[in-house]
Amino acid sequence: MRLCKDLFRIGPSEKKKIIIDTDPGIDDAMAIFVALQSPEVEVIGLTTIYGNVYTTLATRNALHLLEFAERSDIPVAEGSHVTFTKGTKLRVADFVHGSDGLGNQNFSPPKGKPIDQSGPAFLVEQANLHPGKITVVALGPLTNIALAIELDPAFAQKIGQIVILGGAFSVNGNVNPAAEANIFGDPDAADIVFTSGADVVAVGLNVTHQVVFSVADRDKLAQSKGKYAQYLCKILALYFSYHHDAYEMQGVYLHDPTAILAAVNPSLLTYTEGVVRVQTSGITRGMTIFDNTKKRYAEITEWSNKPTVKVAVTVDASAVLELVMDRLINS
Amino acid sequence: MRLCKDLFRIGPSEKKKIIIDTDPGIDDAMAIFVALQSPEVEVIGLTTIYGNVYTTLATRNALHLLEFAERSDIPVAEGSHVTFTKGTKLRVADFVHGSDGLGNQNFSPPKGKPIDQSGPAFLVEQANLHPGKITVVALGPLTNIALAIELDPAFAQKIGQIVILGGAFSVNGNVNPAAEANIFGDPDAADIVFTSGADVVAVGLNVTHQVVFSVADRDKLAQSKGKYAQYLCKILALYFSYHHDAYEMQGVYLHDPTAILAAVNPSLLTYTEGVVRVQTSGITRGMTIFDNTKKRYAEITEWSNKPTVKVAVTVDASAVLELVMDRLINS
Repeated sequence: MRLCKDLFRIGPSEKKKIIIDTDPGIDDAMAIFVALQSPEVEVIGLTTIYGNVYTTLATRNALHLLEFAERSDIPVAEGSHVTFTKGTKLRVADFVHGSDGLGNQNFSPPKGKPIDQSGPAFLVEQANLHPGKITVVALGPLTNIALAIELDPAFAQKIGQIVILGGAFSVNGNVNPAAEANIFGDPDAADIVFTSGADVVAVGLNVTHQVVFSVADRDKLAQSKGKYAQYLCKILALYFSYHHDAYEMQGVYLHDPTAILAAVNPSLLTYTEGVVRVQTSGITRGMTIFDNTKKRYAEITEWSNKPTVKVAVTVDASAVLELVMDRLINS
Repeated sequence: MRLCKDLFRIGPSEKKKIIIDTDPGIDDAMAIFVALQSPEVEVIGLTTIYGNVYTTLATRNALHLLEFAERSDIPVAEGSHVTFTKGTKLRVADFVHGSDGLGNQNFSPPKGKPIDQSGPAFLVEQANLHPGKITVVALGPLTNIALAIELDPAFAQKIGQIVILGGAFSVNGNVNPAAEANIFGDPDAADIVFTSGADVVAVGLNVTHQVVFSVADRDKLAQSKGKYAQYLCKILALYFSYHHDAYEMQGVYLHDPTAILAAVNPSLLTYTEGVVRVQTSGITRGMTIFDNTKKRYAEITEWSNKPTVKVAVTVDASAVLELVMDRLINS
């Protein structure tokens, strides 16, 4: 039914409308530039969230990135400064992205300002304006999306799709062996979103760790004249340094750009379907557990009778890398 | 050092001494018979635990199985009736093994009795009598082993090896999507054992679900004249029925026999090494999380500075099945 409705409403040439919920962030910057340079999608707004940096800085960086791209026409709505269940101490990954979130480059402050609407209110408004047509790509903790669901219980049905960069399915996390950073950032919000009944696609570490941007890729970017390529080469230095220290690798994982491209071209990945729950306490707080629904459990479980989501399983990593390079170099 | 010590103490013809901690249980019965028929090992005792049945019935069944095997010389020490952290409601899998634990066959009560010593006390005594020489194969929840560690803090060092049938590593559990039954049975005890510093080998669902005993295997068993083969064919009916209902499969998983054979011949499996912690609360209570130690986490985690264990990764399933058949038919 959904497919038929979409076919009716969206002509073949109509661009997919996306809102990026973001905490820029080095790979967020790359993802935002890739999205802006992708003719298949129309970025209709950014909402900001804590994660790689605090929310205030995320908003500043979102405005700065749009100004650099000469796309100040795109609204930035500032999101939550705190977790869904208030009082939880925030974990901010400045050791990955720099104290400014953009590789310690000390860019000038942006001229623009966020819109008056909050991130969650903007999400709800857009979902109501374009029911079934908006894709939210969530690149940080899921607080804004959970707040949008709280604000409007019909949000989960009205939003077209939510592509989540988050989770670690059958692999270790990146905050600790159990948890991935975005889900760990607000496990309560994540559990609400995963069980909301929305059309959710989760792109986790099991997939993004397959997409490695190498030193050779960076050199290729550096040699190009594109303004995005030049900008990113500068901010990527710190990101390479973190990956070298944490993983002993000569390259970086393209988490956020992979999630953006999952929205731009879903066929770059394959998916499995099942129920995802998030552990919200204890040593595995922030862990995502996927039920493959292969077993008929004797007892009712916490996964029983919950809506299913799609979880990315494989990715055509070379196609993703090629698309990223293409969009960043030819601009 | 350990290897050198063992080489010095154990001559090439000396049998490996094993204690089976068990909750019989249909596949426990099969495992015990396989162990008794394996010339490589000497079963020096059984300790009993709740799990497939309550502890009292586990003791009765352990005595019954040894009497059937004409091995009443082997002592049975009754283990704990309650979880390590008292007050937790027991989960007993009578829907898998029958209300008598042995496929609802209503066998006559055993003539013998358990020894006066408790299961944990027996484990501690034997570890002290034969330091570094005993292998405990734990086929149920890990309460007795955790109590032995509490009773004698040096137990973890004195015991030769603990082979645990338990956990679900990077796969769904069998109680719910997060947890495997034996670890779910006493998560607190399991976390103590996994982090005790003992030489621990975990054989989880990721491995035992590769070892499927088929209808054809059962028919082969039925055609043989061996007394163990005949006995097992009777009690296996209910186990086949459960697997059909729960997994829509025409066969059964050989959980416990695989763990026994991991003790008899460790080279039937391959292993990875890392830290395992057990979640003790929330929706993923009883989940085992293995840290592959590939990442240098920015923060101290609950896995940091904990002793490593071995976790089985692959199994030569046809070799396991062949050995099981060989030991049961030629007897």
